[in-house]
Amino acid sequence: MTDIDQYLRLHGERFEAELCDLLRIASVSAQPECRAEILRAADWLDARFRRLGFRSEIVATEGCPLVVAESPHVEGAPTALVYGHYDVQPADPLDRWTSPPFEPTRRGGNLYARGATDDKGQMLTHLLSAEAWVECRGALPLNLKYVIEGEEEVGSRSLETYLAGQADRLATDCIVISDGAQFAPGIPAICYGLRGIAYYELRVAGPNRDLHSGSFGGSVTNPAGALAKVLAGMTDNQGRVTIPGFYDDVAPLSDQERRLLAELPFDETEYLLQLGVTGTWGEEGYTLLERRWARPAYDVCGLWSGYQGEGAKTILPATAHAKFSFRLVPNQDPHKITQGIKWLLTELCPPGIELELVDLHGSPGLLVSLESPYVDAAARAIEQAFGRRPVLTREGGSIPIVATLHETLRADVLLLGWGQNDDNTPAPDEKLSLADFHRGIRASARLWQELAHVP
Amino acid sequence: MTDIDQYLRLHGERFEAELCDLLRIASVSAQPECRAEILRAADWLDARFRRLGFRSEIVATEGCPLVVAESPHVEGAPTALVYGHYDVQPADPLDRWTSPPFEPTRRGGNLYARGATDDKGQMLTHLLSAEAWVECRGALPLNLKYVIEGEEEVGSRSLETYLAGQADRLATDCIVISDGAQFAPGIPAICYGLRGIAYYELRVAGPNRDLHSGSFGGSVTNPAGALAKVLAGMTDNQGRVTIPGFYDDVAPLSDQERRLLAELPFDETEYLLQLGVTGTWGEEGYTLLERRWARPAYDVCGLWSGYQGEGAKTILPATAHAKFSFRLVPNQDPHKITQGIKWLLTELCPPGIELELVDLHGSPGLLVSLESPYVDAAARAIEQAFGRRPVLTREGGSIPIVATLHETLRADVLLLGWGQNDDNTPAPDEKLSLADFHRGIRASARLWQELAHVP
Repeated sequence: MTDIDQYLRLHGERFEAELCDLLRIASVSAQPECRAEILRAADWLDARFRRLGFRSEIVATEGCPLVVAESPHVEGAPTALVYGHYDVQPADPLDRWTSPPFEPTRRGGNLYARGATDDKGQMLTHLLSAEAWVECRGALPLNLKYVIEGEEEVGSRSLETYLAGQADRLATDCIVISDGAQFAPGIPAICYGLRGIAYYELRVAGPNRDLHSGSFGGSVTNPAGALAKVLAGMTDNQGRVTIPGFYDDVAPLSDQERRLLAELPFDETEYLLQLGVTGTWGEEGYTLLERRWARPAYDVCGLWSGYQGEGAKTILPATAHAKFSFRLVPNQDPHKITQGIKWLLTELCPPGIELELVDLHGSPGLLVSLESPYVDAAARAIEQAFGRRPVLTREGGSIPIVATLHETLRADVLLLGWGQNDDNTPAPDEKLSLADFHRGIRASARLWQELAHVP
Repeated sequence: MTDIDQYLRLHGERFEAELCDLLRIASVSAQPECRAEILRAADWLDARFRRLGFRSEIVATEGCPLVVAESPHVEGAPTALVYGHYDVQPADPLDRWTSPPFEPTRRGGNLYARGATDDKGQMLTHLLSAEAWVECRGALPLNLKYVIEGEEEVGSRSLETYLAGQADRLATDCIVISDGAQFAPGIPAICYGLRGIAYYELRVAGPNRDLHSGSFGGSVTNPAGALAKVLAGMTDNQGRVTIPGFYDDVAPLSDQERRLLAELPFDETEYLLQLGVTGTWGEEGYTLLERRWARPAYDVCGLWSGYQGEGAKTILPATAHAKFSFRLVPNQDPHKITQGIKWLLTELCPPGIELELVDLHGSPGLLVSLESPYVDAAARAIEQAFGRRPVLTREGGSIPIVATLHETLRADVLLLGWGQNDDNTPAPDEKLSLADFHRGIRASARLWQELAHVP
C-alpha cells in the first residue's frame, strides 16, 4: 500500500480544499429555504463521482435528490455499498458559532463547519480513498456502489421509497457507513448497534387568543402548563417511560455484553466534566454507557409558548409546542410507540385543551452480528491506518435508513465512525479533526483491499 | 349636571383624538428599547395636566418616571386620588394584530390599540371629566390628586419607592382606579377585591452546549425535560399548588360571599364559548368564578428551549426557560411564596442540572369593605351614567401597587373598571369600546360630585 499512502500524503491538502468546497454549501434539509443549496450539494457530488470515472446519477425524488454512483465493474470481485448523506442539521443558534457555520475554518488542527463531521467530511473519505486506488492502480480491487442522500436529518423518506425498487441494482456484500464517532481520541471503534428513533411535535391549543393571566388564570386550562404536565408524565421518577407496552419489545442486554461495555476504557467523571454537568440521571438500574447506547431514552428537543422576551408578561398563552423524541433500541417498533403515545396523551390531557401529535419521523434500531467476516476485515483495515485495533461499541444515535438498507439489501452493515464525541454535532462549532479525516481516508483505502479478500 | 353632560357630548370627538395621540406612543415598560417612548408618554400627560390648570410634575425615578398632578385647592372639600398607568404590555406577536398596535384604529364602535383599555383609555376618563368641571363650573367640587406611573406592567418598583416618603403630600380620603372590566356589556361593576401576584423566571442549565440527542440522550439530564417536570410538579392532579404552606394564609370565602358570586348573572357556557375552549379545569371544589377571582392560580406564561423551527432537530438542549406566576389572594405574602418555591425547586430538581429562580415581581392581594361610604358614592355615580346599579365583584388580575397605595395612604380603594372582559389585554387586538370610554367619562364626572358629598 506504499503507493497509495504516498498518493494520499501528496494530495492531502487538495482533499481538505475539496471538503471545504462541499462544506460551503448550506444544504440544510429541515429548512425549505435551503432548497437551492440542497440541489447544489447533489450536483457537486455527482460531478465529483464523474471526475473519478464512476457512473453517477442524480435521482430526483419528492424531497431532496439522491446521488447514486458506481465504480467501473471488476469481474469476480465482491461489492461494497457506501451510504452517506450530504444534508446537514440547521445551524442555529448562529450567534454561538465562533466562525460562520458555512465558512469552513481551520483552528487547532480541526476544521469547523456545519456538516464537517456529520456527514460530509466522513462520507468524503470513501470517495477520496477510491480516487487513490484509481490513480495509483488504475482500478479498485472490488466493486463500489455509493448511495448519498439528502434527507438523513429529516427521516430519509425519499431514500426509503427509492430503496423499495432497487434491491437488485444496489445488491452488495456489505454496507459501509461512516457517520459517527470513534470511542475516544486515538481509540477507533466499530459500532455494531444503533438506536432507532421516534420523533414528534406536540401542539397544544387552548383559548382562541392569549389571555390575561390575572383576569382568566384559574378559570381555564393553561396550554403551557398542560404541555409541562404531558411532557413530564411521559416518564416516571425512576426515569422509565410510562407509555404502556413501551418496554415489551426491548432486546435485553446479555450479561456478556454488559461485561464488554463495562470493560471499555470509559471515564464517567471525565465524560461529565467535558459536558459541563455535575451529575448524571436516567433510567435506574443501568450504567451511563448502557443508558446511552443500549437502552431507550426520552428527550425534549424543543419548547415554545407565550412570552419569551425580557421582563414579565402576565399572559395565559393560547398555544404551546414541544418537539420530543424517543431513542429506541432493537426490537422496538416506532409505529407501535406512536400508538402508545396517542393512548397516553388521551390519558394525560386535561379538559379544555386540544392536543395534536405530529409524527415527524421514526426508524427502528439495529444490531450487527459480531461473527461477521466483514467486521473482521474492517477491524484489520482500521488497525493498519490508526495503529491500534478498534474497540467494539454500540451507538446511541440513529441513522434512520440503516435498518432499511440492512433489510432491503440483506447485507452486513459496517459502522466506522471517523469523528469524535466532542465534534459538536448538531450544536454550534461543529468540527472534524483533520488528522481523523486523513486517517479515515487511509483506513478506507485499506478497507477496499481487505474486503476484496473476504472469502 | 346638564351643563357638564352637554360639554362632554360637544367635546367627545376631541377626547377620542386625544386618546389616540397617547396610544400612538409605544410606552412598553418591559422593553428597554422603548425608553424614549416612555419619556414621551410622561411628557404628554404632564403637559395635559398643565393645560387643565393643574400643578403637575414629572418625578424622575430609577426606572420610568411618575407623573404627579393636583387640581387647584378647594378649601374644606374632600380629596380623591386617581391612580393609573401610562405604560403598556409588549405588543408581540405583532403579526396577529389586525391593525398595527400603535396606530389606533376604529372598527365597529371600538378603538383598537395596545393600551386602549389597559390603561390609557380608562385612566384618561378621570382627566377629561375634570376638564368638564373646570370648563363648565370654573372649579372641581373636591380636591383631585393624580399619580400616573410607568411601571405597572413590570411591578411598580419606582412608585413603591416614591410612596414611602409621600404619605402626607398624597393624603386622600379615597383612591380611584379604573384599570379593569365591567362585569359584562351593560352591567357595570365595582370591584372590591383584587388578587396579588408572584411572577418568576426559571432558568434551567444543563450541559455546556446543545448535545446530539442520539449520542447523549439517556446519559445526562435533559434541561427541557427537567423544566417540564419542575413546572408540572408545582400543582397536583386536583389543580392544587404543591408549594408547602401555600394555602396557609389564604383568606377563605365566606358562605355569604359564595352566595353573592353564585347569584351573579354569569353564563359559564357562554364564557367558555367566547374563549373558544370546550371545557374548564382548575382547583377542585370551587366554581369557575371563585377560581378566577377569589382563589390562587398558577400559570405558565412563557416557555423556550432548544429547537423551535420547522421539522426535526435531534437535540438535547443546553438550557430551558420558563416564565410563570401565581395569582395570590388575601392574605398570601409573595415573599413567603418565593421561599416556598425555592424549597420545592430543591425537592424537584434532578441531578445534573442547575436551576436559577429570578423573582420578577410580587404584590399581595386586596379586599375593600363593602360598608365603605365611598363604595356607595361610586355606585350612585355609575348608576346615573350607565343607567343601572353596578354589581359588586372581585377581580382575578392584580394592580400590584394598589395594596401599597391602600396601606400607605390608609384610604378606601374604588376599583371602577370601564373596560370589557373581551378587550384582549394583553393579547393582540387590544380594544376599548368608545361607548364605554364616554360612559366612563360621564361616570367619573358624577363621581366627583358624589364624593364631594360623602359625610
